[in-house]
Amino acid sequence: MEQVQFMRNLIIETPSVPGNFAKVALAIGQLNGDIGDIQTIKVGTLSTIRDISIQCTSEEHLLQIVEAVNQIGDGISVHAITDDVLQAHEGGKIHMKGRMEIRSLGDLRRVYTPGVANVCELIKNDPEQAKYFTGISNTVAIVTDGTAILGLGNIGPVAGMPVMEGKAVLFDQFAGISGIPILLNTSDPDEVVETIKHIQQGFGGILLEDIGSPHCFEIEERLKAELSIPVMHDDQHGTAVVTLASVISACQQTDVLLTEAVVGQIGLGAAGLAISRMLMKYGVKEMRGIDRNEVARQRLADHGGTVIDSLEELMATCDIIVATTGVAGLIKPEMVRKGQIILALSNPNAEITPEDALAAGAAFAADGRLVNNILGFPGIFRGALNAHAKEITYPMLIAAALAIVDSTKPGDLVPHPLDPNVHLNVAAAVERVANNL
Amino acid sequence: MEQVQFMRNLIIETPSVPGNFAKVALAIGQLNGDIGDIQTIKVGTLSTIRDISIQCTSEEHLLQIVEAVNQIGDGISVHAITDDVLQAHEGGKIHMKGRMEIRSLGDLRRVYTPGVANVCELIKNDPEQAKYFTGISNTVAIVTDGTAILGLGNIGPVAGMPVMEGKAVLFDQFAGISGIPILLNTSDPDEVVETIKHIQQGFGGILLEDIGSPHCFEIEERLKAELSIPVMHDDQHGTAVVTLASVISACQQTDVLLTEAVVGQIGLGAAGLAISRMLMKYGVKEMRGIDRNEVARQRLADHGGTVIDSLEELMATCDIIVATTGVAGLIKPEMVRKGQIILALSNPNAEITPEDALAAGAAFAADGRLVNNILGFPGIFRGALNAHAKEITYPMLIAAALAIVDSTKPGDLVPHPLDPNVHLNVAAAVERVANNL
Repeated sequence: MEQVQFMRNLIIETPSVPGNFAKVALAIGQLNGDIGDIQTIKVGTLSTIRDISIQCTSEEHLLQIVEAVNQIGDGISVHAITDDVLQAHEGGKIHMKGRMEIRSLGDLRRVYTPGVANVCELIKNDPEQAKYFTGISNTVAIVTDGTAILGLGNIGPVAGMPVMEGKAVLFDQFAGISGIPILLNTSDPDEVVETIKHIQQGFGGILLEDIGSPHCFEIEERLKAELSIPVMHDDQHGTAVVTLASVISACQQTDVLLTEAVVGQIGLGAAGLAISRMLMKYGVKEMRGIDRNEVARQRLADHGGTVIDSLEELMATCDIIVATTGVAGLIKPEMVRKGQIILALSNPNAEITPEDALAAGAAFAADGRLVNNILGFPGIFRGALNAHAKEITYPMLIAAALAIVDSTKPGDLVPHPLDPNVHLNVAAAVERVANNL
Repeated sequence: MEQVQFMRNLIIETPSVPGNFAKVALAIGQLNGDIGDIQTIKVGTLSTIRDISIQCTSEEHLLQIVEAVNQIGDGISVHAITDDVLQAHEGGKIHMKGRMEIRSLGDLRRVYTPGVANVCELIKNDPEQAKYFTGISNTVAIVTDGTAILGLGNIGPVAGMPVMEGKAVLFDQFAGISGIPILLNTSDPDEVVETIKHIQQGFGGILLEDIGSPHCFEIEERLKAELSIPVMHDDQHGTAVVTLASVISACQQTDVLLTEAVVGQIGLGAAGLAISRMLMKYGVKEMRGIDRNEVARQRLADHGGTVIDSLEELMATCDIIVATTGVAGLIKPEMVRKGQIILALSNPNAEITPEDALAAGAAFAADGRLVNNILGFPGIFRGALNAHAKEITYPMLIAAALAIVDSTKPGDLVPHPLDPNVHLNVAAAVERVANNL
């Protein structure tokens, strides 16, 4: 028997005619494909779609099997070859569920007509009641224009949807929030702001996600100014919260007093600028930054930071370094200052590996694998929604960072992202500050 | 003991301090309020909200209890008095759920970063794959501007949200569709069309809901023309599908051949015009209509119907009458022609009661209590989405009506709306037509 080298899944559509599936099984078996789990993912009137797990010896072998299935005819066809990751995304990762089942006409009359009219009238007469009798105040729009999806760049909002659905899964699981992806076909700040304003009454908050720089700055600022619900661009402030928490943890482990330290930010894009602003709001007195882009440098200066011209100078003069450039290996070991704290956060490859940084004399070094936004946004919005806050302020964000630090086990940089206590603690801290307590 | 006359529920918020709930219970008990079930509906860091069921003797008694609770002080307050209907809507009726639970870092890496990047790239390279690896093609936006909510009129989209959430519950339960309420703060056709176009990539279809006349006509026509996903205004075409099914059922029971009958539509608003158009598309050769509004009359003429000037003439010349005026008692018994079929659909009070119509000589009479949109829209969209249809056409809608008729038990006008077979049959019929089979 040939050695089984890898497993893939075939998404195969067959017209709903008895015997069609047997033809598929035969075609696979004749080529020595080993059929594993089979899941029916759509039973239509006219056709059935199955997800068939197949073990085979090579990609070439797999493609021979696909070819054989496609040549059966009778309308049988392979839609896609998937793997484990893709399987987790099949059919989408989220679904809008009713919170109750309608089991009787009585249920129907309460939930829908005619009973629902009473609820509508109640809200009409006292709009505040919408907080209690609709899901609006527990619902957050996850808005993207698809211009900065993960590290993939401007791939468009539909290709970015798996990320937005992922955010909605995390909102649901970690904060009980109903997250609604909104895919924008425009990046023009006027059109984006106008569109969000036209639909914002259905939401208790707006999470801006993977919107590129520089238009993300204008879009967020205008929405924050014009809407009376919380708006947050996660790639800026969510990242900055988790980074602040990481920096505080690193300082605690090295006995550095953060507010007295000189901090250098390498890369002043959306994340880098937001990290710099967050550190200054936290109390860092000397915040230095570097970027190739003149407009980005000016932004740091406008927010009170000091622009440095050479990487060597920045590395030589700062106690703490945060890097978010996306450029692997940018920081050379010889630039590292003895006793420095270095967070080189670019994924998947850091500006300098923790091993190299420590070998070069750094007192503490970490890369971006742990510094995950998941630690921030669910609890931040849960707290803001609980407090019916009209905005997300720096004190709320700093409280979130401190709650992350407090939830971190001794010796760790940040908590485990699946620890539900982190999210509860972040939510409580944010709610407390939002209520001015 | 005083006679218990009615039960209400109090939504009471207490700061999360031990003993506060006892104060509430004492205040209620001292006034002889009988505490029933208690449900905790929010446990916040700072405060707890409970739903407390109370039996009392009168509304005055209830208000005394509310007053007593509000006078306890310590931040304790009654947010609302609810009843059974309101309870069904507490906290909203829908929630965006993750379709999987993230139980490990492995899960997280598959569902979110870094794994999700593979899925994004797959879709970027082949946008068709979004049908299989996102929920977009199973998601329908439920769009309203709040200008014609049920029979309540222009109460705004937030007050209309309970209806939109109800539609989403029905979509989920009867068709497995993820329904997303979109509340528009504008009724201007240009702005509505522009807004929907900016967000439509996230949806597989658009259900327009409770949008007033006449702007509903322009909005629907333009969206149908400009979008390549199914768009349907339920108050027009959903209503027309269920009405056509009812008329066909009534004809079957009275041995009338619908296509040869003269049909009269009283009231040419959004529903009435759509019913007239649907009947003509079905094959009715002589479609007559009446309305006080000149523009509405002209619309019927533009679509090929015959405008009649007097109600008496319409009643005297038509074999079948459909009324959707909202004017109770409009049809006098003396206007009824012997052997006529009369569907007087206005809710809650019909243009003529079935009893009066039958007593006056009608061969068949029904009011609007049974003619419920629920029978139509879930299956119509399920079928259209299954077929990846780009639009909802009259042949698809007529197929839906015939499937409703086929699902009706002998002697009934329409099927029971909670019978899941109706929705499966409608979906199958629509999918078949959409696929041109």
